This record gives sequence, structure tokens and C-alpha cells, in this order.
Amino acid sequence: MTDQPSAADQPPVVGMVGAGQLARMTCQAAAGLGVGFRVLAAAADESAAQVCAGTRIGDYRSADDLLAFARDCSVVTFDHEHVPGSQLEALEQAGIALRPGSGALAYAQDKRAMRERLAALGVRCPRFTAVASLSEVTSFADSRGWPVVLKAVTGGYDGKGVWICATPAEAAAVLSHGLDLIAEEHVAFERELAVLVARAPSGQGAAYPVVQTVQRDGVCREVLAPAPGLAPGLTAQAQRLGLAIAAELGVTGLLAVELFQAADGLLVNELAMRPHNSGHWTIEGARTSQFEQHLRAILNLPLGAPSLAARHAVMVNVLGGEDPHMYARLVHVMAADPGVKIHLYGKPVRPGRKVGHVTVLGDDIDVLRDRARRAASYLSSGVEQP
Amino acid sequence: MTDQPSAADQPPVVGMVGAGQLARMTCQAAAGLGVGFRVLAAAADESAAQVCAGTRIGDYRSADDLLAFARDCSVVTFDHEHVPGSQLEALEQAGIALRPGSGALAYAQDKRAMRERLAALGVRCPRFTAVASLSEVTSFADSRGWPVVLKAVTGGYDGKGVWICATPAEAAAVLSHGLDLIAEEHVAFERELAVLVARAPSGQGAAYPVVQTVQRDGVCREVLAPAPGLAPGLTAQAQRLGLAIAAELGVTGLLAVELFQAADGLLVNELAMRPHNSGHWTIEGARTSQFEQHLRAILNLPLGAPSLAARHAVMVNVLGGEDPHMYARLVHVMAADPGVKIHLYGKPVRPGRKVGHVTVLGDDIDVLRDRARRAASYLSSGVEQP
Repeated sequence: MTDQPSAADQPPVVGMVGAGQLARMTCQAAAGLGVGFRVLAAAADESAAQVCAGTRIGDYRSADDLLAFARDCSVVTFDHEHVPGSQLEALEQAGIALRPGSGALAYAQDKRAMRERLAALGVRCPRFTAVASLSEVTSFADSRGWPVVLKAVTGGYDGKGVWICATPAEAAAVLSHGLDLIAEEHVAFERELAVLVARAPSGQGAAYPVVQTVQRDGVCREVLAPAPGLAPGLTAQAQRLGLAIAAELGVTGLLAVELFQAADGLLVNELAMRPHNSGHWTIEGARTSQFEQHLRAILNLPLGAPSLAARHAVMVNVLGGEDPHMYARLVHVMAADPGVKIHLYGKPVRPGRKVGHVTVLGDDIDVLRDRARRAASYLSSGVEQP
Repeated sequence: MTDQPSAADQPPVVGMVGAGQLARMTCQAAAGLGVGFRVLAAAADESAAQVCAGTRIGDYRSADDLLAFARDCSVVTFDHEHVPGSQLEALEQAGIALRPGSGALAYAQDKRAMRERLAALGVRCPRFTAVASLSEVTSFADSRGWPVVLKAVTGGYDGKGVWICATPAEAAAVLSHGLDLIAEEHVAFERELAVLVARAPSGQGAAYPVVQTVQRDGVCREVLAPAPGLAPGLTAQAQRLGLAIAAELGVTGLLAVELFQAADGLLVNELAMRPHNSGHWTIEGARTSQFEQHLRAILNLPLGAPSLAARHAVMVNVLGGEDPHMYARLVHVMAADPGVKIHLYGKPVRPGRKVGHVTVLGDDIDVLRDRARRAASYLSSGVEQP
């Protein structure tokens, strides 16, 4: 025992590539854990860069910028999936600890590879095929029916890069962009669910309660935790599925699995390997927030309890509306409901953009949903819409 | 309605003088609310300066540094009570909005003025008198008995500046430092309580549940929320007392009132006009954390719900021990208790220094206290002491 800690005893420094709201909220969690935290931002006014003392400006597509950023970090993680795979591999070859690693991230970046790998693991997914021409799309539709879901193999984010095509003409319009695409059957789901799990390099895993997500126009609008009325067997199945996929793909950090609940069971829709919109409710609604859990996982620390901190939590996203004067509307929302938790991301307000979220906790899911919707609606538009 | 918000619609910028752990945790809350946040730090490695993008380096005793810092802020608030009163008044004369203002802060900075003002308001306090000589101390002790509590009129912080003197010789040793002092009767209290209230310039007030604090060697060690077994009448009395003092003194922001519970009722011990150690449990244990509440109050936003988020919350401070390698001990605490919330402040470990705290929530106060003590003890020393 010496008076001065050695370098190995200093708290580690986490580097996150990207400076959106996920990085902003991870920054808040890092300050609580007492670990160092840096973000690689494209500009100083990005959401996380506004608040993070450890902001570095650079381009996530540049090998030089990535390496310069990563060299000072104990581990590097990601706010988004857009860092090119070749750059990820180069970083690992330079000895940088990526969490998750390039091998796992490949499945979050490439929807075809993800579908093929999950199929090989026996995980039930929508039927799919790679398509390069309209005839291939119509051939797929001949057996699976219209509408057909076309997805960009790479670059999809939060619903963008996904098109539900009701006719060959609509499919032709998507094909005209020259993207690498897969076609998927349009699942007649009852509702959408998500399960968020964490996995540490030690192999320890932890699964959050399964939630229901409500999407509109391809954008997540509401999350209900836990998913109301979900049969215990399906909850356990979804959690096992999340933990199994994380282990099979070698994920370190968080893995969000978006699911369809159909009459005959669960199908995997999308994967994301980072904090996820479907987990924002955990900041107040779980014993350990997803942001702290991601940090614990990538630092190979024991995972925190993922259990609920209340009977129900409802999160509703705040989307930008026509009127950008959001701060002026805070006073009404706070006065109308002192119990709603408001999170604003510091992003310029543009119509449809996610600029914040609200969370309410309590016993009656219908009351919570009404409260959260009213607060989010007023922040967006100045009108309370239940 | 225009496309571009005017300056008045931009979120405000809060400036906090001081960069200790209170500023660090306020910084986390500001990021959540989407308001700007800056700290005036003495050095870039201070607790809040490590994490806050808006760090300015300067001396809180320098009029020039204070004014340069304050000019860019919508409101200015404080992590400590050490800014000289003359500087506070000069800032206000320069048009800076101080929250709390110099008039209120005077009572947090000057224990004699605080005692005299509270006495004039009819608030019960320990009996006291100003003392400048040993004969004045012994004269006070002749009527009130030994031990006598000597307190520095200004500069006291967290127990430092308070001396419990059992004999004239001990009092003489304190007097020899030439401080401006008051003598107080040593109250035979049953336990110590604290009530935390917020007050906005609008006049809105909100009171948190009354807590029990456990001090050792003049340092807060544990906080039990709510105070176990406190009679509802005393809870209401303490909350009314806190709100009344805040209103009478014109406090804006938080006011922490430290109380003695004696056999014959409550006495006011100390006041602090800022986030307070006795309120750290609110981060997870209340619907609105004290740090968010302080921001809401000083920004004249409606106050958040101060209600409990669990049946009980227990907070235990993590004090530095002999072995500074605290990060290396995290793994054990996290593995032993996945439900404990750990907050580390990024401060160099020195024996007895507050370097973090832990909070646990649940139903059984004895279990929670045991869990929190074990976690804090292990972080301090590498030994779990219940």
C-alpha cells in the first residue's frame, strides 16, 4: 500500500464516439460514478458537447481523428452505429479497447448480416431476402404478400432507412436510390416490445423488464415499462433471447432488442448496441439507469440491479414542433404536473426531431400515460393533447 | 411566432460559484433540464470542474473574477458560503441576479446575525451569547453549564469552526486563535434532524420530508429519510419552520435547516442556503432531486414534487481512508450489492474527507442502513463494517 495510487488505480476514462443525447445522458452517469468521460463531437454545440468537459472535436469517419481521440481513453464506446467497420478494425489493431467490439458492432451496422446470423442461431425473425431489383421484390411479395418492408442494409437509424411499400411503384421509388437493400415480410404484429440487456466482458449479463414501445411514422413515441399485461412466459422468453443474443454476438455494453409481438409469438425486428430510446425510462424508473449500466458493462464492473423502482414507468418523447420556444413552455408543464420528470437535450428545435423526453412513475398506467402525453405534447406544441 | 427564438427564449445560463461536489451534482441536474450551467472553479481539477463544460477558473474572493464570471450568467448561485458579503453586494449593485441574494446569505455566513434574527422571529434556538474573552465564556457557563459550544461567527463549514469545550482550558485554546466567536449552550438532544425546503422568487415553497442526520466528529455520516418514528406533528412543525424561515429571510433556492430534537421539542442549530449533504438521498429517493429543485427555484420555475420515491432512503457518506485506491474497491461493492447507488466525486482521497456517498432505497430501514454502511465502509477502507 502506497500513498500515491498508481496509474492502474486511477479511475478509467471512457470515450464515447458521437455527442447526441445518448452521450449527454451517459455523461451525467459518468459524473456520478466518478469515472472520466470524453466525447468525440462533430461540433461544440452538439447535445453532449454542450455539457461534457471532455469534449474533443473530430470526424468519426476519420482514422486520424478516431485514433487521436481513442489514445487517451481506457475504453471507447459509441453513441451511434455510423463509424465505418474498417475504422473499427483499425482501432482494434492499434490496441484500442472497443466496447462493443467491431465483431459485434458489425451486426448492428449491417441488417443483412444481422438477419443471417440470427437465423443461423435459430432466432425467429421476419422472413427476409436480399433484393437488388424490382423483380426480386415482386417475387418476394408473391410469396409473402404486400406490403413489403424494404430496409437499407447499412445506415438505418431510428426508423429512417426503413420503408413500408404497399405497391411495386413504391418499391421502385426506394430502389431508385441505389441502396443495398433487404426485403422483409410485413409482420401483422399486435404490438412492439423491446428488451434491454447488458453484458460485461466478464460474461455477466443483466436484463431489464420488457417494455412496450409505441412507434409512429417510424419514430418511437412512447415506452411503457413493464409492457402492460405481458404474460410472464413471454417476459422470460424475451429476456432470455436478449441475453442469448448478447452472448452469441459477443456484445459488451448494452444491447437493445426490438421485438414484434405477434399472435403466434415474438420476432426480432432490430438490434442496437448502445443506450437506447426504449431505455430512457430507466433513469428514474429502474434501480440502475441504462446509462450507468452501459458504463459498468464496458468497464467490466459488476452490473447494477435492473429492477423497477416503481410499479409502472411511462416515457414519452418530446418531438420538436412548429414553435421552437420550448424553454418558455417549461413553466406550464412544471406547474401543471410537479411529478413529471423532464429531460431536454439542448438541441435546436426542428419539427419531428427528438429534443427531449418526459417520464412519470406510479401505480396506474392509464393515468401515467395521460400525464406523460400531456407534458410532452405541451412542450412540443403548446397544446396539451392526452 | 417566428422561426428563430429571441434571446429571451433561449434557456437561461446558471452560474455557480465554487466547484465542489455540490456543483458537480448540480451540473448533472442542469444537463437534464436543458439549461446552461457554469462553475467558477479555483482550479481545473476541482470536483465540478472535471465534468462541467462551462468551467471558468477564478478566485471567488476577487471582485473582477466574480463579475467576469457573472456577466455571462442569467442567475448566479453558490456551492459554498465563502464569498465575502461585500462582494455579494457589489455584484447586486452591478445588476447581477444572485440566488439567494446577499440579504439572505448574510444569515448563512454570520452565525451571530442568524441567531439574533431567528430569536427575533421567535424561532427556538440554543441559548447563545457573543464572547470575546475567557471570562465571558465562563460567565456563560456559570448559568448554562459545561460543556460550552464555541462557534466561529463566520467561516464555519460542515462542523469545522465548531468546538465543544468541556473545560475553561479547552475554551481558552479556542479563544487563542482570535476568531470572532459565539458561545452556545450544549443541547442535550435526542437526535439531530434536518429539513430541506425550496423557495422560488415567486414565493412558491416546497418542503422535503424531514430526515434524521447522524454526525460524528462534526461530520455528517448518515441521513435517514424520512426520520424514523418522527411524530407527524413534529414533521409538520419542522416543515413549517423551514418554509417560514425561508420566507422571512427572503431565501431563493434551497434552505437546509439543521435541527436538534430534544425531549421538549425542536431547536434550530444551523442554516445553509444551497444543496446540502442532508439532501443527497433525494437524487434517487425523492421525485425531484435537491439539485434540480435548487435550479428550478433560482430560475423561478415551478417547484418539483419533493415526495419520497420509496418507503425509506438511507444515505451514508464515503469518507477517505488510509488507502487512496478507491476505484479498485468499486468492484467489490458493486458485486456485493447491485442495488446500492454509488456517487463518487472525483476528489483526491484524504483521510476523513468526503469523497462520495452511497444511497439505498427500500422498505426496511435497518436493512438499508446495514447495506449503506457496508458499502461506504468498504469504499473507505476495504473493510465492510456494518
